[in-house]
Amino acid sequence: MDTFFNPSSVAIIGATEKTGSLPGVILKNLLDMGFAGKIYPVNPKYENVFGLKCFPTLLDIPEKIDLAVIAIPASFVLEIMRQQAKRGIHYSIIISAGFREMGAEGIQMEEEVGKVAHENNIRIIGPNCLGILDNYANFTTSFLSWERITKPKKGALSILSQSGAFAISVLDLAAQEGIGIAKMANYGNRMDVGESDLLPFLMEDVHTKVVAIYMESVDHGRRFIEAAKACSREKPIVALKVGKGAAGIAAAKSHTGAIAGNYEIYKAAFLKAGIIEANGLEEFIDGVKALSMQSPPMGNRILIVTNGGGFGVIVADYCTENGLEVVPPSAQLKEKLKEKFAKFYVVNNPVDLTGSACDEDYRIVLQTCMVESDEYDAVIIIPLMSPKGMSETIVSVIDETMKESGKPAVVCTVGGVFTMKVKQLLEERHYPVFPSPERSAKAMSMLLKRRVLQMH
Amino acid sequence: MDTFFNPSSVAIIGATEKTGSLPGVILKNLLDMGFAGKIYPVNPKYENVFGLKCFPTLLDIPEKIDLAVIAIPASFVLEIMRQQAKRGIHYSIIISAGFREMGAEGIQMEEEVGKVAHENNIRIIGPNCLGILDNYANFTTSFLSWERITKPKKGALSILSQSGAFAISVLDLAAQEGIGIAKMANYGNRMDVGESDLLPFLMEDVHTKVVAIYMESVDHGRRFIEAAKACSREKPIVALKVGKGAAGIAAAKSHTGAIAGNYEIYKAAFLKAGIIEANGLEEFIDGVKALSMQSPPMGNRILIVTNGGGFGVIVADYCTENGLEVVPPSAQLKEKLKEKFAKFYVVNNPVDLTGSACDEDYRIVLQTCMVESDEYDAVIIIPLMSPKGMSETIVSVIDETMKESGKPAVVCTVGGVFTMKVKQLLEERHYPVFPSPERSAKAMSMLLKRRVLQMH
Repeated sequence: MDTFFNPSSVAIIGATEKTGSLPGVILKNLLDMGFAGKIYPVNPKYENVFGLKCFPTLLDIPEKIDLAVIAIPASFVLEIMRQQAKRGIHYSIIISAGFREMGAEGIQMEEEVGKVAHENNIRIIGPNCLGILDNYANFTTSFLSWERITKPKKGALSILSQSGAFAISVLDLAAQEGIGIAKMANYGNRMDVGESDLLPFLMEDVHTKVVAIYMESVDHGRRFIEAAKACSREKPIVALKVGKGAAGIAAAKSHTGAIAGNYEIYKAAFLKAGIIEANGLEEFIDGVKALSMQSPPMGNRILIVTNGGGFGVIVADYCTENGLEVVPPSAQLKEKLKEKFAKFYVVNNPVDLTGSACDEDYRIVLQTCMVESDEYDAVIIIPLMSPKGMSETIVSVIDETMKESGKPAVVCTVGGVFTMKVKQLLEERHYPVFPSPERSAKAMSMLLKRRVLQMH
Repeated sequence: MDTFFNPSSVAIIGATEKTGSLPGVILKNLLDMGFAGKIYPVNPKYENVFGLKCFPTLLDIPEKIDLAVIAIPASFVLEIMRQQAKRGIHYSIIISAGFREMGAEGIQMEEEVGKVAHENNIRIIGPNCLGILDNYANFTTSFLSWERITKPKKGALSILSQSGAFAISVLDLAAQEGIGIAKMANYGNRMDVGESDLLPFLMEDVHTKVVAIYMESVDHGRRFIEAAKACSREKPIVALKVGKGAAGIAAAKSHTGAIAGNYEIYKAAFLKAGIIEANGLEEFIDGVKALSMQSPPMGNRILIVTNGGGFGVIVADYCTENGLEVVPPSAQLKEKLKEKFAKFYVVNNPVDLTGSACDEDYRIVLQTCMVESDEYDAVIIIPLMSPKGMSETIVSVIDETMKESGKPAVVCTVGGVFTMKVKQLLEERHYPVFPSPERSAKAMSMLLKRRVLQMH
């Protein structure tokens, strides 16, 4: 699989400088990323493309080629596959749409391409996809311009996705949410390479610490479960299964030709394979964000600390709903806190520091309850930034105390520009911040789920 | 109730120019908002505060006073209440904390204040609250600085909230989400005025079109249901009930002294009163946003149109889960669309315009399916902005076609800076935009719930 992510040499079929052409954009993106491997544009119309020597056909390239990237109309793909066979190019990413997802005619084309590939040991990603992003090898086959989406920083999350639009949006969201990306593979119609091939590869990949999968259907049921089981022993896997109800199943079929199948079977398989299932896009992003940034807690005793009482109440509700225990502090711990605080602060769980809170009040709570005491396994911190006592100092308060505690923290904060600034600073330090009480409780519960899976 | 929101004259007890003092901030906020009524600072220490003549006590003010705002320590409040009685000031907003929420001693103080108020026909909002914001009367008693939160524009949403932090965060979110605000009342411990008094007032208020309630407990069960029933006949009410599980109930008690009670009883009461219940902060905001911006659909037949196939699949799933019908287009309608589109566009429901989509493709779908056809009651539009064919033109495409159709639309779009720009433009034109497929489907289902309630 490594050749798909980090080829020594790649041919771009149909490369051109014309705007709007897919192979042209792919070549340009690849150059912009600073890919260090050899690039061979292929197009009989040109001698040079973006300053690189251009070849009339694959057969005219004198050097060895690892990978061919095909983004020309579907009807020409079979011929390219035959040329690949002649040249002994064993890896191919077919970006082009117009295959299985189009019905009978498309299925036939896809099968013919598959036959040539199979007879000549050519592995294929696609068709009908964006292909690959490797953030460490600086390699991509994406045909979307980086002007429209924000390029994510290097990091620990790798994404497998049947849907291209979904993969791109997750990359864009990841950039927004401060989640670093290792690799992305989008395989669309998945005529060959799919989850079962890619999971073992990501399991071995040194950069990947968390795997996220968007799934309309699965490639090979049994192989997938085995691969996921092995991978999830090492690294958390979060999956979003779509195509659940009748309308969604029909939509998945039109989308990537996927047979979405019975959702209950998927649920059972995920459980068996140690996969954490997300309900919806936001839970998916929130879960991979929490797992990318924080370690799972050692138990389910959660402290809530806030200066917005109402938010404390909501988080407490959603903790209970999601299997987290909001246990009250012991009499001894309460006493210790009460000594340090104004009379009207509510010393309980949640700890409510009220509208009079300042950053250093948070330090007292976190130091006393998370560092000096063993009563809690993790903390949900809800610092509302609107009162005057609150400032950017909250970032170092959280960072210093939580590092000392060695326990995980999830932050919830709600608000506008100033709140967003604090969110960014916290996420740079790997504290995941969520914009609502329910999402912070759910993210914490996903961290706990990971711990439970690890214990099995 | 009008006196609380738009008094002719208001006295601010303890007013000062010193930074950090609550009465001082309240006075400054009131001046900054451009409140047109008379303002009387009360403080024996000063002759003038912020250029206004300051009086030693309430008894020294020669003119009639409608409302007294009290934000001094709890132990002094009883004396002020006695002065109010002498002066015949019948309305009072007590911002001060340190009452019922603090236990036995606080309860006793609250009861003494209540006794004086009751004997002298003084109505009270609070204690332990932020009080009032009236965005049309330019009146507020909030002690939070507008530098920290964004001031929302004038609009149709009014908020009732037991929690102050919650109320402020909702105002801040409203500003972010393009939701205009009419009035806000936060009553904290609610020793007197609560939901049952305020709902009939909001029902009559010309500016209020949608009512949002954050509730830990209810003031008077039967009166509340009657008031809500009457109000919901005219205007949608969305409620967020918190303090559901044991941990949340305990937290609510420490927060505002509320007895949160049995959640199932609340659920039943909401149903009876025609209240739309939200599950969590985001569903709450999303629901009021959709209801503030769009009309309920006439039926549950939903069209989905997208250029991101995977998102179409997820929205279809969540539509089904939330009682919306994703019916396929008739053969005739399909034919009409197919004539106009490239072969690889998926003409079904969802309509998938693929990565090749441009703004004008959306116009064709909306014109054909929503304006010229009667097959759909509403549409969820998912324009992903990353492909090159998409531009800000999508805003006028949606606005022009949907206005002509007279049917409601909800928009989902996922992404970074450029996407946010389009979101803002759409929301200025009253099309609610949501950042995930599941939230857009749920928001549409809340619009539909409103229609169902109207039909009863």
